Amino acid sequence: MTAAETSVFQSAFRPGLPPPAPRFTGLPRYNFVYGHNDPSQVPAHELADAASAVLNANGHLLGMYNLGQGPQGHKGLREFVAAKLGTRSGIPCTADDVLLTSGSLQGMDLVNGVLVGPGDTVILEEFTYGGAISKVQRLGAKVVAAPLDGDGIRMDALRRILERLRGEGVTPKYIYTIPTVQNPTGTIMPLARRHELLNLSREFGVPIFEDECYADLVWEGSRPPALYALDPAQVVHIGSFSKSLAPALRIGYLVAQWPVLSQIIGTKTDAGSGALEQMVVAEYLRDNFDTHVTELTATLHGKLETIVDALAQEFGTAVEMFVPKGGIFLWLKLPDHVDVRTFAQAALQQGLAFNPGPEWACDPEAAKSHIRLCFALPTKEDIRAGVAELARISFEHTGVPERSANRARA
Amino acid sequence: MTAAETSVFQSAFRPGLPPPAPRFTGLPRYNFVYGHNDPSQVPAHELADAASAVLNANGHLLGMYNLGQGPQGHKGLREFVAAKLGTRSGIPCTADDVLLTSGSLQGMDLVNGVLVGPGDTVILEEFTYGGAISKVQRLGAKVVAAPLDGDGIRMDALRRILERLRGEGVTPKYIYTIPTVQNPTGTIMPLARRHELLNLSREFGVPIFEDECYADLVWEGSRPPALYALDPAQVVHIGSFSKSLAPALRIGYLVAQWPVLSQIIGTKTDAGSGALEQMVVAEYLRDNFDTHVTELTATLHGKLETIVDALAQEFGTAVEMFVPKGGIFLWLKLPDHVDVRTFAQAALQQGLAFNPGPEWACDPEAAKSHIRLCFALPTKEDIRAGVAELARISFEHTGVPERSANRARA
Repeated sequence: MTAAETSVFQSAFRPGLPPPAPRFTGLPRYNFVYGHNDPSQVPAHELADAASAVLNANGHLLGMYNLGQGPQGHKGLREFVAAKLGTRSGIPCTADDVLLTSGSLQGMDLVNGVLVGPGDTVILEEFTYGGAISKVQRLGAKVVAAPLDGDGIRMDALRRILERLRGEGVTPKYIYTIPTVQNPTGTIMPLARRHELLNLSREFGVPIFEDECYADLVWEGSRPPALYALDPAQVVHIGSFSKSLAPALRIGYLVAQWPVLSQIIGTKTDAGSGALEQMVVAEYLRDNFDTHVTELTATLHGKLETIVDALAQEFGTAVEMFVPKGGIFLWLKLPDHVDVRTFAQAALQQGLAFNPGPEWACDPEAAKSHIRLCFALPTKEDIRAGVAELARISFEHTGVPERSANRARA
Repeated sequence: MTAAETSVFQSAFRPGLPPPAPRFTGLPRYNFVYGHNDPSQVPAHELADAASAVLNANGHLLGMYNLGQGPQGHKGLREFVAAKLGTRSGIPCTADDVLLTSGSLQGMDLVNGVLVGPGDTVILEEFTYGGAISKVQRLGAKVVAAPLDGDGIRMDALRRILERLRGEGVTPKYIYTIPTVQNPTGTIMPLARRHELLNLSREFGVPIFEDECYADLVWEGSRPPALYALDPAQVVHIGSFSKSLAPALRIGYLVAQWPVLSQIIGTKTDAGSGALEQMVVAEYLRDNFDTHVTELTATLHGKLETIVDALAQEFGTAVEMFVPKGGIFLWLKLPDHVDVRTFAQAALQQGLAFNPGPEWACDPEAAKSHIRLCFALPTKEDIRAGVAELARISFEHTGVPERSANRARA
């Protein structure tokens, strides 16, 4: 018997828990997983100055939960979020409409907490953030996949799904969408389709859960207004500074009309999110967000070009790339006969980490040939070396790609 | 119809949600609620220096989730926690045994998450942290109250409870205890009773959930080793820097043997706690914790003396005080015929906030004459004025106290 089996806790554990975590053994040499960002782009010295300024001025406020500013969090940061949403996402709102959260993940937990229970149904994009799928499944709810094309959710398919569910007497709890730089496909839903989506939401009485985690990292041009901007009564909106500033800062936000927001706040039992991070980020972002995001986006776009080039060189015609319109992820597909799960573990053991498509799909089999690569963390050199390593390992296990850099393998 | 009633969300909300939050309208004039601390004791300038130093040196690490240091959090802070637990709580452990959490509240959620489900039973101290009660109740579990005396849980009573439950075929999921500066009664469980408690834990196969949130704020002398120190196989241990440093920093920790800790980490879906706070606090505490806690404790003890004196003056023999051995709370009792709920709302409307005993009791009726006062936030002047106000409002509604400062009221 192991220690766990003899422990008083072992018999007390709830049934159906996820597997225990392994010991952390360090980061892989070539790291294309999660939403890590480019460490060189973290404005460390500016954050240091901001931290010094706000702590010297207002550090004593840390003696009170939420700085004494109430359960929605730091007033100044909420004001910044409201202003940013107005400028960038077309959302007219004030600090009173904003709840600061511990990353957008807490936003997801809070929305699920007020809406989703065992036996409920939610509609997710067929390929989407893996955590969105697993959180819903852990709550005992059913996931229905909405098919995507290059403009996001296909409205003809969504209507058929909603009609089918209505026929079964089911009203889904929400339609979860990442309309602006979709994860993992990197698409941006055009304005006309946003209106179509809201029409369906109203017609079938299904709320929309809008996630704009990556929306501040668009390569070029303007983006359509957020769904929340177009009809706030139908939508709850979340976002984050994890991708636009730094993921180890756990600062996200949730925006909703007061009847929804007050219900969500009423369920919170965490005594607020870390206020030091809120103070520092509010101080830094007030004057620097636009400049920072412009520079960061240019850096990320450069890395995207590198990874696209490297994949073309190493995989040639064997790879189909869904080149994103912003963000930090590249979604790609190998030939249909390739199941990327067959070499994900082997790659990890050789120091290369990627997200197998099945982890980012409502139906894992539908994405068995897909891979999601986060290109933000590695240097350009490591991107090239890592992609070459990916090709080598993939070939070893699947015979794909047969040719790299115009040379036959093996 | 209100906006909420017409909203698409209204029909989607889960049944049985807590009531929506009211709009935040500022802090009460006399604030004796929650676990706020003394703002003048927050080492703002030292934290500013620490923040500046760590961000300039390592700010770029914020570009990676958890600073690239794995799901247990900032390595340096975990090392500090382990060293502090060794020195102060008698717990031999290393950074590998520590999980950093977003306050001890997340620690509670994580422990409940792996152990407590609908229909389960847990044993709580009869008077305890209100959130411990409500979190368990929201999970659909039953609460059984363990009677207290001046040394914590009464072991004779606990044995009878465990025997009764065993007779009913029930094994409680845990016994939750705050053995070192109990909330709200302020007692410290002596060593001999700690051993008795562990004996019962082993005999009946019930894990112990030990909360040491206040343990670093003991007025004088040494305190007995933590329960976890005495038998780590039977105990999961949580603590926090909310009370010893600042509550708006959400930094707590959880310590358990690996079979338990790995199971808990396996259920985490928040991508870690805020790393900037961890970096800053690690830098500050490494060289300053002992000095800071000594000064803070002296300040808090001075405020305790003030509130005890003020209560004696304003309430005379009408108040029974449970003078704590540390911490930030004073638990008191008015005569049996007084129900403090009859004037809590009126007090709040007049700018005075206190925690009615029933919110801190497994059986609300058993604490209807009790009040918990947090004395850490108000100045000594506000403590005196606030207690006078409390006496005035209490008298208006209950006729108690009849005399204040040796003068008859009314």
